[in-house]
Amino acid sequence: MPYGELDQLAINTIRLLAVDATFNANSGHPGAPMGMAPIAHILFNKFMTFNPKNPDWVNRDRFVLSNGHGCMLQYALLHLFGYEVSMDALKHFRQVDSITPGHPEAHDTPGVEVTTGPLGQGFSNAVGLAVAQKHSAAVFNKDGYDLFTNYTYCFFGDGCAMEGIASEAASAAGHLQLGNLICVYDDNHISIDGDTACAFTEDVSKRFEAYGWHVIWVKEGDTDLDGMEKAIEECRKVTDKPSMIRLTTTIGFGSKLQGTHGVHGNPLKADDCKAVKAKFGFDPEKSFVVPQEVYDMYHKHAADGAAAEEEWNQLFEKYGESYPTEHADLKRRLTGVLPEGWQTKLPSYKPTDSAVASRKLSESVLEAIHEVIPELISGSADLTGSNNTRWKNAVDFQPPSTGLGDWSGRYMRYGVREHAMAAMMNGMASYGTVIPAGGTFLNFVSYASGAVRLSSLSHRRVIYVATHDSIGLGEDGPTHQPIETLAHFRALPNMMVWRPADGNECSAAYYMALTSKRTPSILALTRQNLPQLEGSTIEDAIKGGYVVLETPGAAVTLVSTGSEVAICLEAAKILKDQGKPARVVSMPCVEVFDAQPKDYRLTVIPDGVPSMSVEVMSTLGWEKYSHEQFGLNRFGASGPYKDVYKKFDFTPEGVVKRALATIDFYKDVKPLRSPVNRAFTNLI
Amino acid sequence: MPYGELDQLAINTIRLLAVDATFNANSGHPGAPMGMAPIAHILFNKFMTFNPKNPDWVNRDRFVLSNGHGCMLQYALLHLFGYEVSMDALKHFRQVDSITPGHPEAHDTPGVEVTTGPLGQGFSNAVGLAVAQKHSAAVFNKDGYDLFTNYTYCFFGDGCAMEGIASEAASAAGHLQLGNLICVYDDNHISIDGDTACAFTEDVSKRFEAYGWHVIWVKEGDTDLDGMEKAIEECRKVTDKPSMIRLTTTIGFGSKLQGTHGVHGNPLKADDCKAVKAKFGFDPEKSFVVPQEVYDMYHKHAADGAAAEEEWNQLFEKYGESYPTEHADLKRRLTGVLPEGWQTKLPSYKPTDSAVASRKLSESVLEAIHEVIPELISGSADLTGSNNTRWKNAVDFQPPSTGLGDWSGRYMRYGVREHAMAAMMNGMASYGTVIPAGGTFLNFVSYASGAVRLSSLSHRRVIYVATHDSIGLGEDGPTHQPIETLAHFRALPNMMVWRPADGNECSAAYYMALTSKRTPSILALTRQNLPQLEGSTIEDAIKGGYVVLETPGAAVTLVSTGSEVAICLEAAKILKDQGKPARVVSMPCVEVFDAQPKDYRLTVIPDGVPSMSVEVMSTLGWEKYSHEQFGLNRFGASGPYKDVYKKFDFTPEGVVKRALATIDFYKDVKPLRSPVNRAFTNLI
Ligand SMILES: [Ca+2]
Ligand SMILES: [Ca+2]
Repeated sequence: MPYGELDQLAINTIRLLAVDATFNANSGHPGAPMGMAPIAHILFNKFMTFNPKNPDWVNRDRFVLSNGHGCMLQYALLHLFGYEVSMDALKHFRQVDSITPGHPEAHDTPGVEVTTGPLGQGFSNAVGLAVAQKHSAAVFNKDGYDLFTNYTYCFFGDGCAMEGIASEAASAAGHLQLGNLICVYDDNHISIDGDTACAFTEDVSKRFEAYGWHVIWVKEGDTDLDGMEKAIEECRKVTDKPSMIRLTTTIGFGSKLQGTHGVHGNPLKADDCKAVKAKFGFDPEKSFVVPQEVYDMYHKHAADGAAAEEEWNQLFEKYGESYPTEHADLKRRLTGVLPEGWQTKLPSYKPTDSAVASRKLSESVLEAIHEVIPELISGSADLTGSNNTRWKNAVDFQPPSTGLGDWSGRYMRYGVREHAMAAMMNGMASYGTVIPAGGTFLNFVSYASGAVRLSSLSHRRVIYVATHDSIGLGEDGPTHQPIETLAHFRALPNMMVWRPADGNECSAAYYMALTSKRTPSILALTRQNLPQLEGSTIEDAIKGGYVVLETPGAAVTLVSTGSEVAICLEAAKILKDQGKPARVVSMPCVEVFDAQPKDYRLTVIPDGVPSMSVEVMSTLGWEKYSHEQFGLNRFGASGPYKDVYKKFDFTPEGVVKRALATIDFYKDVKPLRSPVNRAFTNLI
Repeated sequence: MPYGELDQLAINTIRLLAVDATFNANSGHPGAPMGMAPIAHILFNKFMTFNPKNPDWVNRDRFVLSNGHGCMLQYALLHLFGYEVSMDALKHFRQVDSITPGHPEAHDTPGVEVTTGPLGQGFSNAVGLAVAQKHSAAVFNKDGYDLFTNYTYCFFGDGCAMEGIASEAASAAGHLQLGNLICVYDDNHISIDGDTACAFTEDVSKRFEAYGWHVIWVKEGDTDLDGMEKAIEECRKVTDKPSMIRLTTTIGFGSKLQGTHGVHGNPLKADDCKAVKAKFGFDPEKSFVVPQEVYDMYHKHAADGAAAEEEWNQLFEKYGESYPTEHADLKRRLTGVLPEGWQTKLPSYKPTDSAVASRKLSESVLEAIHEVIPELISGSADLTGSNNTRWKNAVDFQPPSTGLGDWSGRYMRYGVREHAMAAMMNGMASYGTVIPAGGTFLNFVSYASGAVRLSSLSHRRVIYVATHDSIGLGEDGPTHQPIETLAHFRALPNMMVWRPADGNECSAAYYMALTSKRTPSILALTRQNLPQLEGSTIEDAIKGGYVVLETPGAAVTLVSTGSEVAICLEAAKILKDQGKPARVVSMPCVEVFDAQPKDYRLTVIPDGVPSMSVEVMSTLGWEKYSHEQFGLNRFGASGPYKDVYKKFDFTPEGVVKRALATIDFYKDVKPLRSPVNRAFTNLI
């Protein structure tokens, strides 16, 4: 069907909704929506299959706006197609408690798949969505039952193209031959600093070709609707490569300032708003106008989407007759609930069991549970043998043509691409059928900070397997030894940071990570061996903090995590001999401990007993759980780990020395309150 | 001169030193040194000019080992050429307190330019070193006085090539046409997970061509010494593009495991050590052997370098006669000391001056000081108009052919490349003639975490201008509003995090950032206006924390930073009216406050008065400076900033409410100690 006036009307309606909403908010980015309205119209109305009445339908096409500042484009589309994004919501764009925040947030707005805005993230999420789709299709599709057929579409701009995370993800996507991924590059030659000539003059098309992508250039992205349609069509036919459409557009198309950065991040001036409305044949005096025929056209497409879902539902029901096991498995996965009884597979340990590094304990968990949790997809950023993230008979997720695995594989080779790994995991978790876990050294989770933050903000069940968690990694030295890292992620809302002290705690960490449907986790794991503690149990550890050594009449409470708990237990023996009995608390996860009732927390860190934290990195934040802190507020050292621990006095004797100072220091303070007691409660 | 036996002997000597040192340490990475010894030999002995007796000579060629795990390659070279890296140091490879740590650290080891190991960093540092060279040449070179002529050489491996930071830096380097940069890509097809076929199958050469690089492929990197020499020669002649030599090598060349990842991160087995020695014509029973002729050859080259420096010194002295001003300026810059009296240019403010956003106050500082500190190079990651990092008459650092600036320009257009910006600044600061300052939103300093950490670890004077520092940025919403960020960087050793409350504090922040030669700074600055405080002075603020409102008989001390200090002062008025007088402390930089004498700190946060911190982000760490904490341990909200502050109760009334709770809560505690008092002191 050739494009006609109604299409142009729809495109201009989208543009003007963005103009009006940003003007109304006196804030926002009209330029990208005005430039990308044509491609958005074609993509949503011609190609994408979705049901606005059920944004969760699993085989919907996914759309990601990686240039998330252009979110009024997405909000306008969601509104026009009939998602639960009302005209009133558009009028409350960028207002407190609206569902139309300044950048798209997946947990806020129906139809928004992933949380974008921080540049490069959405693009990388899209790669993850495409991975999850390929995998789900391989696992569940059967002859005559093409349950998973959706595409992932993504828009991205110059900013995303410049970000390293997107380069990493593009390279990974090319390697993975993700033919189900189609990305549109808004080549408008403008970024915030002005013309891209000032900083970004590379050949983006050639770069994507180098990654192994299929690339098309549509030169008239403002007007050539047929060209855009043909391009998307062609991309859909290329099934062995991801596709990138370089679309040359005019930012702020229609504005007096079109083609300049003046229209990127600021609303149009009042006279410009009127002029552009007049130019597009709209009443310059009216705002937030949607011609009924535009609604009608889009609602018809939405109805087609609803019908497609209905058809799919019937197919899925029939599938249940032929493939009852897969049917039940998929149904369950979509609820986010794990298979009944899975937790009985978690390893538990006795004190007599041998000392094992927690990265190896983590491997044992994965080995034990991977069969009962088929949605678990592990992987590593090129540290498989160090992170111990791969169970023995794992199959790699790889294009079959590589001979290295297949699409049903559950082990991801992310390459040395920590940031993309994290963002891909956010995308994979967003798809709805898998739970991703990915490994790197704890120190290099920091490389992924931008995406880790979005795991938390967007409530994604993502598991970071972060090994080599302290100076205990030894010889690699200060460049690899985390000092600030745990404080960083403990300060991040909605993130569980686990630092298990032994096998039972490691199992507890996985239990919580896997069952917390809306909270990501970082598991900080050792390189060095840890003894199995007397007094640890999975049941206790899932409370986040518990007493691992109770001592009547204790003179001090030692509060510790991970590899330092055993050192504290040794210190307690010495302290006992010196007539200063110590209690020892293991606190593998402060966030989970914080969520326990105050009564419980006070039994762990009671009033009247001075307390000291022991953790071999920054003390920042430990004041919340202890009166005094023993830590390492400097960089570490390169050497065998026992020498390094000794250098910094992290020995039973070093703990004893400071515990005695703590006991002495607080002997006259009355009442000596537990730090659990606070004058008021902060919002959390 | 054709290559002969002595060259091969030298190459094998390097290889075997790496074999012996890693074997001796029972730790480390022999593979890369064994594979890259040939190119290293040619580069160091044929092309590089340096004087091992003075590693600080400013016109030396710079060498960066971005694949820093291969550091035994670098340590071996430094030893052989006569730097102060003794054979004993090689024998103490990866031992506590040696100068041969597990990855190269610039501040530890003479001849190591930058701290590498975290992948992609060194490559990006090299781009920064090349930027600083180009700039210094443009500023100081005169007809007949080519003071700055050095090249920057960099080795990098597959890991670096996969990291997004290196992609960003490569794109920037291509745009900047850095013809003085020559990078060698160790194309050995191996990463930790095994063959790069499993994750990294892109066309790296084509990608670099897309960035605008000059690319050569040397296919026989183990043996084709002539080819390597020709390639470097050719690259040196290409002056309008950075060059990349793709060098196909065999990892662990000579080992039984050569060409596999088995030789990447583990020492060779004892029998393999012997076998490779025999293969290379060395005594299998001896270790750490250097034939005298190898020393002789390398020491001769070192002597040539010393002579080159001497020649340069004479040229520089002569330069002083013709260009006394430039001569004096360069001499001064090389000491790291700022021009005398520069600080008198720092703006100071009275309470009657108008309210200004601290990002604008920062702009005023840059405007006021850029002429007196010619080594200051500002820039932004594509947020120039938002970060306010550009003084009015600034010239961009750009290739003249772009028509957008020139090499003498002092404003960097980093593009949307935060991570590369930070690493480039580390490289620029390492060059020795410039002080880099670069802007982005505070939230996106997190994208650069990996490099920011190395600013701290390697003691680089780098200034991060981090605007939009809280929920006070308003409409952009939670994706852009920092919560965890200040806690993260406060936990990072050797980093000053400044959050100025007004103009005087902003000047103080710059004063400390610019005069701290071995400590980087993050300046957290507001988008919204801040009043000029009564009671603030530059002199007080440079102590990191001070009493901005003293009140006799105070019932509470409010400890606050940045935009919340003015709110606390308003709260203090209300509290006074309620008969609960409050003191207010402004704490723009906790790290600098920590460095003050205890006596002083106790006058700021005294015993006997309950204290409460007020900062509109994570409370993590504030327990160190206050008894109670008012903060935001959740994500923010999108809306006009006043509405957002109100939503979270960050108003004078909200502060009062919690201050009263704090006063009440501590009324019975005796003695009520200041949190400044500790039972013991941590290592810092
Ligand atoms: Ca753009
Ligand atoms: Ca390699």
